[in-house]
Amino acid sequence: MAQAQIGLIGLGTMGAALALNIAEKGFPIAVWNRTTEVTHRFAETAGELAPRVIATDTLEALVQAITPPRAIILMVPAGEAVDAQLDALAPLLGPDDLVIDAGNADFHDTNRRDEAGLPFRFLGMGVSGGEEGARHGPAIMGGGEAADWDRVAPVMTAIAARADDGTPCAARMGDAGAGHFVKMVHNGIEYADMQMIAEVYGLMRDGMGLEAQAISDIFARWNEGTLSSYLIEISAKVTAARDPHTGAAMPDVILDRAGQKGTGRWTAIEAQHLSAPIPVIEAAVMARNVSARLDERQAGQARFGAAPGPLSLEADALEQALIAGKILCYAQGFTMIAGASERFGWTLDLPQIARVWRAGCIIRSTMLNDMADALADDPARNLIMAPFFADLIERAIPALRQVVSQGIAAGHALPALASGLMWFDMMRTARGTANMIQAQRDFFGAHGFQRLDGIDDSHGPWGRQA
Amino acid sequence: MAQAQIGLIGLGTMGAALALNIAEKGFPIAVWNRTTEVTHRFAETAGELAPRVIATDTLEALVQAITPPRAIILMVPAGEAVDAQLDALAPLLGPDDLVIDAGNADFHDTNRRDEAGLPFRFLGMGVSGGEEGARHGPAIMGGGEAADWDRVAPVMTAIAARADDGTPCAARMGDAGAGHFVKMVHNGIEYADMQMIAEVYGLMRDGMGLEAQAISDIFARWNEGTLSSYLIEISAKVTAARDPHTGAAMPDVILDRAGQKGTGRWTAIEAQHLSAPIPVIEAAVMARNVSARLDERQAGQARFGAAPGPLSLEADALEQALIAGKILCYAQGFTMIAGASERFGWTLDLPQIARVWRAGCIIRSTMLNDMADALADDPARNLIMAPFFADLIERAIPALRQVVSQGIAAGHALPALASGLMWFDMMRTARGTANMIQAQRDFFGAHGFQRLDGIDDSHGPWGRQA
Repeated sequence: MAQAQIGLIGLGTMGAALALNIAEKGFPIAVWNRTTEVTHRFAETAGELAPRVIATDTLEALVQAITPPRAIILMVPAGEAVDAQLDALAPLLGPDDLVIDAGNADFHDTNRRDEAGLPFRFLGMGVSGGEEGARHGPAIMGGGEAADWDRVAPVMTAIAARADDGTPCAARMGDAGAGHFVKMVHNGIEYADMQMIAEVYGLMRDGMGLEAQAISDIFARWNEGTLSSYLIEISAKVTAARDPHTGAAMPDVILDRAGQKGTGRWTAIEAQHLSAPIPVIEAAVMARNVSARLDERQAGQARFGAAPGPLSLEADALEQALIAGKILCYAQGFTMIAGASERFGWTLDLPQIARVWRAGCIIRSTMLNDMADALADDPARNLIMAPFFADLIERAIPALRQVVSQGIAAGHALPALASGLMWFDMMRTARGTANMIQAQRDFFGAHGFQRLDGIDDSHGPWGRQA
Repeated sequence: MAQAQIGLIGLGTMGAALALNIAEKGFPIAVWNRTTEVTHRFAETAGELAPRVIATDTLEALVQAITPPRAIILMVPAGEAVDAQLDALAPLLGPDDLVIDAGNADFHDTNRRDEAGLPFRFLGMGVSGGEEGARHGPAIMGGGEAADWDRVAPVMTAIAARADDGTPCAARMGDAGAGHFVKMVHNGIEYADMQMIAEVYGLMRDGMGLEAQAISDIFARWNEGTLSSYLIEISAKVTAARDPHTGAAMPDVILDRAGQKGTGRWTAIEAQHLSAPIPVIEAAVMARNVSARLDERQAGQARFGAAPGPLSLEADALEQALIAGKILCYAQGFTMIAGASERFGWTLDLPQIARVWRAGCIIRSTMLNDMADALADDPARNLIMAPFFADLIERAIPALRQVVSQGIAAGHALPALASGLMWFDMMRTARGTANMIQAQRDFFGAHGFQRLDGIDDSHGPWGRQA
């Protein structure tokens, strides 16, 4: 029995959804889960797709159920479970068989596994879109050798989401860890998008005194315009939802303590290694960390009084502020990707990344269409300098400045929006203030500096140099 | 010939200064440098200290010149050079000999070396204060076993800076990498202090139109009050200095592109691993990274026009803003240290750390006296909640809010000051906006949330959960 075109290991939420998606697109798939009961339950719930699902009870049976050269998707928890599974597969697979780690791997691990010389072919693959995306069309970011990607590209493009122009949101990003790297930055941007939305939500709730339904209406209106995106769409939905227990608006019953699974933090760490400024993402991770310190926040309020006070802002100004913040954040993210591409020799295709993100993933938005175009026009240029976005920014920055300035004056915490604006103001100022830092560094550490006038003297007359 | 009480390897700027300091305090010291010529040149310039300096031409001679059980300070570039030196010393030393890495090591490396089972005793030691400090009194942060620290404590306390109350600024922080960790956070805070000063400098230069000398006078005045510190002192000096080539104020001839040696970045990375919010330090690292992108900043100005415009602020408001920003930044830094202490099982003594930083190091300030007292009073309490600092903050926050809000409105980039304020406003708000993030995460990923009312239902009625 060797009739499956592809195999999948790990039938958790994401694995099960992906397997059904693959079967639905016409590819017979062999599946296996460490717990046999899970495999059987999955097969039973496959419904009309059951004829294309081969449930196997052992890893050996899984391997034998797939037509060689085999392709097997791993969807197990990132980390040691992946290494354990690769070890278990090693004696069963031949050098032409291909294993695809589709989990949420740290791209360094993917690089390490690729370099370790596995006895089979190997791809790292970022899959975004949650359970819903995995089931009906995720965004897929592959990493590994082109020939290996090409072998599975028919499956991946068939199951992926499609942009409005019909292009599948699945592509090879580059070698080895490149796919997981791009997925990681995607998640970092996701943190930032969510944080900026939460900040604007706070301005409406605490500053403008709006009820959740009114906020929902505003989000819904924004979703018809420049901000049209999945996250704005679901922001309208969650603010409109009513708690079945109390009848209250859902956001009003949820504790303000945000969890995280780590990819935002990974993005911040990698950006540090790359010297890539991504302050909006950093602020978003910081805000989640502070949100977790609930006891301290309560003590802080008891001592200092709560911060946010009333504001007179128009919803239109908030929309413009969010447009500006979003562009600034994405500009930082793409710059970080460009930096990684250079550092790791990946020759990442920035417009292609924007295209892959247009549908299926959590940060999908219509704006990514324009970003893809702008990056295609000149991938080396900072996104804020692309004419389309420079014009958008020029129109939107006054609103961002007004919102941040007035919001801060009234005690609102706007770390992500403020960080974006601070970055922009630095990026538009040819003469900054780092000369002061250089003077200090030379004073106490003789680190030297460059001069504006080109005179060849890299130290100041501090009377301290040896 | 075995007459030295201690040895030192590596006669670069820092090593040479430290060796002279040790000799000056009465301890005969044997020195060795990889390049013999450097060793001889050092011995020749030792002047009246020469009788207490034993210059050696080989590592073997160095070892033999020290009375056993030996203590040898390594002051070589961090990284591979340290490992190479430890390897070279291994066959020459006995199990009771002690090697002290006094370089700028990554504390992870110090932990690794400690755990590797070296054939001699080992301490990691952070030394702050630059060449001047090394020569006349640095702050010294030791890491390793207490018995090993105690052996060299007489030398270290003799050469260290002394606080106003006479206490030497040298102490064992904790096991293995603890000393280098505390030194790393010191450097992160140093980045933040310098960035906040640079921001206030920018407000005076670009917003208030002050000349460097006028700015110097203001810094000098601040140095007499709450902000009294080495960095404010040298800020007054560098702004007063005149360029010998052109006669211009020194800051005005220095390029605004800040370098870095990496410890600020390390701090930001470790904070991410610890989930410790240190936004002011992150902003400072970010600002240095952006400063390096000079071409992009020039292009940005050409497209969008320069940001900073005129401001009507009083110098007193800037002083208060800087006081507030400084306290907020240090509160973040000490919280990070507390987190590391718990994570790594170091039982770090926070008030002792503040005491060690009071003199000798770059961030030395009178405020650290009060911080040491406040932390001694209750080390587990966030510094902003200590009565002395809560009162200071309460008085200073309105000025920080005014400066940040008006500065941003006028186009000034104030990432560090703004980040501090954003953190404070989150830390004083019991009901934040992370409920919105939790609603979104549950909507798209079924991540679940906690409710405010304790009802046992961790998912919303989104109609999407399986």
